[in-house]
Amino acid sequence: MPLLVFLLFYSLEHVISLPNYIFLIADYLGYNDIGSYGSPTIRTPHLDQIAAEGLRFTQFYTASLCSPSRASLLTGRLPIRSGVYTNLPYPEDSKFRVFYPSSVGCMLKNETTIADFLKAKGYRTAMIGKNHVGHNAGCLPTDRGFEYFYGLPYSHEEGYPTYPEEIGWPPVPLFKDRTIVEQPVNLSSLTPRYNQAILSLLDQYAATQENFFLLVGYEQPHVPLFASPLFVNVSKRGLYGDAVIEMDDSIGQILAKLKEKNLDGNTLIFFASDNGGWISPSSGFSSNSIPPFDGGSNGALYEGKGSTYEGGMRVVAMFRWLGMIQPGISMETASMMDLVPTILEWSAIQKPQDLVLDGYSLVSLLVGKNQSSPYPYYPYWRDRTLYAIRNASFKCHFYTRSGFGDDPPVSHDPCLLYNIDWDVGEQYPLNVSDYLDVINSMNSIYQSQLADVTFGPSQFEMQDVSVLPCCHATLNASGILEALAKYGPGLEMWNSLGCVC
Amino acid sequence: MPLLVFLLFYSLEHVISLPNYIFLIADYLGYNDIGSYGSPTIRTPHLDQIAAEGLRFTQFYTASLCSPSRASLLTGRLPIRSGVYTNLPYPEDSKFRVFYPSSVGCMLKNETTIADFLKAKGYRTAMIGKNHVGHNAGCLPTDRGFEYFYGLPYSHEEGYPTYPEEIGWPPVPLFKDRTIVEQPVNLSSLTPRYNQAILSLLDQYAATQENFFLLVGYEQPHVPLFASPLFVNVSKRGLYGDAVIEMDDSIGQILAKLKEKNLDGNTLIFFASDNGGWISPSSGFSSNSIPPFDGGSNGALYEGKGSTYEGGMRVVAMFRWLGMIQPGISMETASMMDLVPTILEWSAIQKPQDLVLDGYSLVSLLVGKNQSSPYPYYPYWRDRTLYAIRNASFKCHFYTRSGFGDDPPVSHDPCLLYNIDWDVGEQYPLNVSDYLDVINSMNSIYQSQLADVTFGPSQFEMQDVSVLPCCHATLNASGILEALAKYGPGLEMWNSLGCVC
Repeated sequence: MPLLVFLLFYSLEHVISLPNYIFLIADYLGYNDIGSYGSPTIRTPHLDQIAAEGLRFTQFYTASLCSPSRASLLTGRLPIRSGVYTNLPYPEDSKFRVFYPSSVGCMLKNETTIADFLKAKGYRTAMIGKNHVGHNAGCLPTDRGFEYFYGLPYSHEEGYPTYPEEIGWPPVPLFKDRTIVEQPVNLSSLTPRYNQAILSLLDQYAATQENFFLLVGYEQPHVPLFASPLFVNVSKRGLYGDAVIEMDDSIGQILAKLKEKNLDGNTLIFFASDNGGWISPSSGFSSNSIPPFDGGSNGALYEGKGSTYEGGMRVVAMFRWLGMIQPGISMETASMMDLVPTILEWSAIQKPQDLVLDGYSLVSLLVGKNQSSPYPYYPYWRDRTLYAIRNASFKCHFYTRSGFGDDPPVSHDPCLLYNIDWDVGEQYPLNVSDYLDVINSMNSIYQSQLADVTFGPSQFEMQDVSVLPCCHATLNASGILEALAKYGPGLEMWNSLGCVC
Repeated sequence: MPLLVFLLFYSLEHVISLPNYIFLIADYLGYNDIGSYGSPTIRTPHLDQIAAEGLRFTQFYTASLCSPSRASLLTGRLPIRSGVYTNLPYPEDSKFRVFYPSSVGCMLKNETTIADFLKAKGYRTAMIGKNHVGHNAGCLPTDRGFEYFYGLPYSHEEGYPTYPEEIGWPPVPLFKDRTIVEQPVNLSSLTPRYNQAILSLLDQYAATQENFFLLVGYEQPHVPLFASPLFVNVSKRGLYGDAVIEMDDSIGQILAKLKEKNLDGNTLIFFASDNGGWISPSSGFSSNSIPPFDGGSNGALYEGKGSTYEGGMRVVAMFRWLGMIQPGISMETASMMDLVPTILEWSAIQKPQDLVLDGYSLVSLLVGKNQSSPYPYYPYWRDRTLYAIRNASFKCHFYTRSGFGDDPPVSHDPCLLYNIDWDVGEQYPLNVSDYLDVINSMNSIYQSQLADVTFGPSQFEMQDVSVLPCCHATLNASGILEALAKYGPGLEMWNSLGCVC
């Protein structure tokens, strides 16, 4: 549309009403696992519709694991600031990479979340699905700005009876607000129940004409893979593909509801994966129960979930707001941390003066006023260590390490340089002597990023069985050991402890 | 549209007029190197338009090298039948993989090409761009059913002065019909000149309202990379990306012309790459002049051009015919050999009774009447050897070998089995004992394919400097050696022989 008409429309929108927000977060979906990103085997017509009607990013970053990624989405800040990391050195760091059922800590309680901001602005706020930024007292979504929570506190792999060897974790609980309503959660009906909750909320918001912020954290396609009976064997890609297709179908139901309720013109949809696909699903487990096909594909990207190579941190991501966001493909650097600043701008919320945000507003990029990334550079953090820096087309690794192997971090001096626009697979390190200026600049950026960042106290190491979610009791270590001795590992044991409901 | 309306429209189209055909063939474009197949760095809006308005294939096969791929497109048959292979064993086979400037032979002269069929049906036929199925007497496009040819007889890497070490090959010639009109060809203006020729033909066909078949063989993005001045530095992906974007722009001009001339409703556009992207461009050369970035990316697919892994033989491919072909994504097996049978059906041409075709008509798949692949299985040939068989989701390698390395073929008994729908990267061989039935079936298919195929006499080995294209002379070996001794390698030497014009 002509610029003036566009600007008029843009201004009018702002005058008339605030937008609604729906964030849809997939659980470690691979970069290559939906149609619009080139999947050869998985059909995702609804995500492809969002891609066609919205702006799809090819260079969108996030933390390489679930908890830090979701913390960065909620806060607009590096996870290191909000305590969502471990301070332990190698090899102990491998044992504390996300929040577990026994995690005492959580994303620091003094963080202001996107839900806090929007709730204060008068938005209705709700989280359906996976939380994973902590679940101890004061840590649940309903303590973090969400009026409503229906979902899992952490990954559904974290708990018996899914993986028999993990006897230290109780059956996975399903929460409604602060209450466990089902334990273990019935995965085969979970997504349909999420759908019902989502559609019911949208009906309600449409009826009252209130602004809303809805965050949906799909459990799919994380292992252990699952799909509702209707979606089993619908894809060529096995249960992994089935799981993706069930998620896509859920998104289709949301799109249809928005259309039905005439909400399309005033609702921003954001879809992304929380981190890169898990390409080595067997390696993180002591059991061999997970075949490699249960992992995803990151296409041309090297490595996957857990690593600071592109396969771990570059994810599928797209924004749709009909009439506002210019459809197309953006090849600019953007990140999960940009959601808070973007929403602050679009909802006309003043950023608190003392709040340090690491993301940038994407508004001008999304509406097509500006084609350039707001990032001067992008830092690749993994726990307490800054692993790499991206600057324009160049990425320099100061440390490298596999996502889920037993290998220690390897330091590089000078840093290991790639042109990741030319070599997205990080296969051909550049000759240092040809790029001394770039290396020098990377060194400066590295130091300045380190100097800029204030570490919050690390939360991952703090573990105590007394915080294990259990619907009818508080647990203690000796009780768990006694029950184990009496019943052996299994649901009966947990039932005897009061953790089945 | 409702089925009845659709069928009516389908029948009317057939009554009213025959369709026109435009085939657009990229030169070893990587599977991941256009937007609709997930390129993170190369913008291809016009190809993406074809993908959005047409049917895009994710499992489309072709031979792994230029000459056999183009032969299979032209004949609808395995290249082994038309002589487009070498019969030499390893390691000599590596030296004769396509037609060279000194090739005496060509795709067998008794083959009937798609252009022969269509010309006999009254179509105007033209080839613009790369031929590469032979250029000796009786072998040029104008000898094979094309009324008009403007392009190169073979790859533009095959000839001095591009690669100084290749002193045996004259400067690359540009042909018009059977005449060399420029030697060496000026690459930096080549695509614009192709565009001019294409648009002028389309104007002419539109004016006379004649049915036409236009085959465009882009030289891009083959090495040595080139782009017209307007397209240098337009991409994030270096000169490789620039070359792809210039090709995409050419396709945009064709789309615009079709619209302008109101030809959209009666013209089928087919776009594909002749084979997988070259991922190891330095390995095939004695010089180190080609950086790895000059190669393409095949995304999740393993290996590239020259190999029988998916990266060598699975390519980007899409069909558009507005109002006839159902837009979408097909994940069914199809191949370059299907063009002849498809066109025979759509243009109501009777297949000669004694002609053996290896491809299948895709008409019912393209119009949406049938969702399944016509292939009972797919054979992966490399020269005289059948390397692998695909059957449904399974692929079994009887031989493996790198695309351009020095390694010999390695035989596998039992064959090396993958589920390439689950594991498109061919990373996780399946446990034979779990799939004995599949292996047995693969063995039967392998034998039956071998028994079915009649080898044409192999053409690649026959070489003679007297057939080297030279605009003003016929060459002989002693003359070349004398000129070399006198002038040293260079344009002056070739000029002295009469091969510069």
